[in-house]
Amino acid sequence: MDRLSLNQITTKAWSLPEAVAGCAGAGVGWIGLWRDKVAEVGADRAARLLGEYDVRVSSLCRGGFFTGIEPDGSEVDGLARTREAIDEAALLGADVLVLVVGGVGADGLAASRQRVADAVGELAPYAGERGVRLGLEPLHPMQCAERSVLSTVDQALLIAREHPREQVGVIVDEFHVWWDPRIEESIAAAADRIAGFHVCDQLVPLTDTLLGRALPGDGPIPHRRLRSCVDAAGYTGPIEVEVFNAELWRRPGSEVLADVVAAYREHVA
Amino acid sequence: MDRLSLNQITTKAWSLPEAVAGCAGAGVGWIGLWRDKVAEVGADRAARLLGEYDVRVSSLCRGGFFTGIEPDGSEVDGLARTREAIDEAALLGADVLVLVVGGVGADGLAASRQRVADAVGELAPYAGERGVRLGLEPLHPMQCAERSVLSTVDQALLIAREHPREQVGVIVDEFHVWWDPRIEESIAAAADRIAGFHVCDQLVPLTDTLLGRALPGDGPIPHRRLRSCVDAAGYTGPIEVEVFNAELWRRPGSEVLADVVAAYREHVA
Repeated sequence: MDRLSLNQITTKAWSLPEAVAGCAGAGVGWIGLWRDKVAEVGADRAARLLGEYDVRVSSLCRGGFFTGIEPDGSEVDGLARTREAIDEAALLGADVLVLVVGGVGADGLAASRQRVADAVGELAPYAGERGVRLGLEPLHPMQCAERSVLSTVDQALLIAREHPREQVGVIVDEFHVWWDPRIEESIAAAADRIAGFHVCDQLVPLTDTLLGRALPGDGPIPHRRLRSCVDAAGYTGPIEVEVFNAELWRRPGSEVLADVVAAYREHVA
Repeated sequence: MDRLSLNQITTKAWSLPEAVAGCAGAGVGWIGLWRDKVAEVGADRAARLLGEYDVRVSSLCRGGFFTGIEPDGSEVDGLARTREAIDEAALLGADVLVLVVGGVGADGLAASRQRVADAVGELAPYAGERGVRLGLEPLHPMQCAERSVLSTVDQALLIAREHPREQVGVIVDEFHVWWDPRIEESIAAAADRIAGFHVCDQLVPLTDTLLGRALPGDGPIPHRRLRSCVDAAGYTGPIEVEVFNAELWRRPGSEVLADVVAAYREHVA
């Protein structure tokens, strides 16, 4: 239980103060924060609240979008925004800033991938100077066009290894990588590059590419097996439960967190 | 143009006789058939029509579902049904039977993958005796749970190589594999195991996991690049345009085929 972290997207109805207090009340010592929720209260107040409740930040979501476009197709300066996110992560005491690297930009897949590698190269020292590790998160291939040209752990590792390990790591999120026939070897190869382990399940049938997630145990993902791989690779950090699910989001945060704790105990811990 | 094949799912409104006549009329010498459309007229009549119109069968869709479940969750004897499909492919003069191997069965991901490998081992000689090549088609990872625990060309190749090359090959379908960071190396490695090349594009945003396809040129898939890889690997067979798209399906087959020909000329040929 001391490794469980609530990724706050799971309790989307909760504000940041509610989520931090909720975690503390439920004995959950870690939280994964989202920048929009931090912005609602301000980063300084968020940092104070975390200290008061003694809840640590497992990761901040998110930087990235280096290919020039956001999921809705609008333009974005991913480098500038990610520098802000690195500063915020440092202020919040988050060891890891999750990167969603961006989808296929106007110049195509190959060029978009190169932009990502270049951006990580530009930002890694900046992050390192501030004590923040960049967490490259491969996203499910169904999100390649819109959100992430980074699709596998192997691919993330190739970029990460160009930089010092304390500056760039890899996030293993079950939803995104469980189907990968190479995932066990990839996790073993990632070893001390693993900067986070996110758990959840997949809805079957998968009717929504973004919200098709469920609590661990409600789908086909082999949690114990992936957990044992991550353990064997040497990862000892927090384990985030991160569920995008419209039905879950309609329920009170406290109920959802209770279900998160139960699912984690039964299927992951 | 002599390599273009119409996968008949693209002109779903057309019956088999309409599709065969339509291909002949448009100068398209190949067609990819589906078993439900063959069943509507009977395999013998289908074979006669193909002969009369001088249209050859690039592939028959489909055998598989070896993990015991169909996409709707119902049980199925994939081995028995695939033997029937092999017989039908032989009768229709189809060189290739496409296999959709099945999703995660009741015994989980790892066991389901083993079932697939075992089934291919059991069926390969049966297919070989009838002059039919089994085409292992990796499906997009978003279809792993429901339709195919086979997700990458590399993974398909590992199974195919256990058997003679004339018995088991691999289908490269752009929609399913374009996002794969290893796809270029995988296609090169597949070489003379490539038993088919299917082209289409992906809708952005991707709002449907099954019907989220478009004609080549309307999405992010780098057709020329993938085509050049498949060429370099030595594949010289038919190229199927296979599009699952609800809007396309509502249009008259002749209009759709004209658009298929135009899109193929502009983006693939």
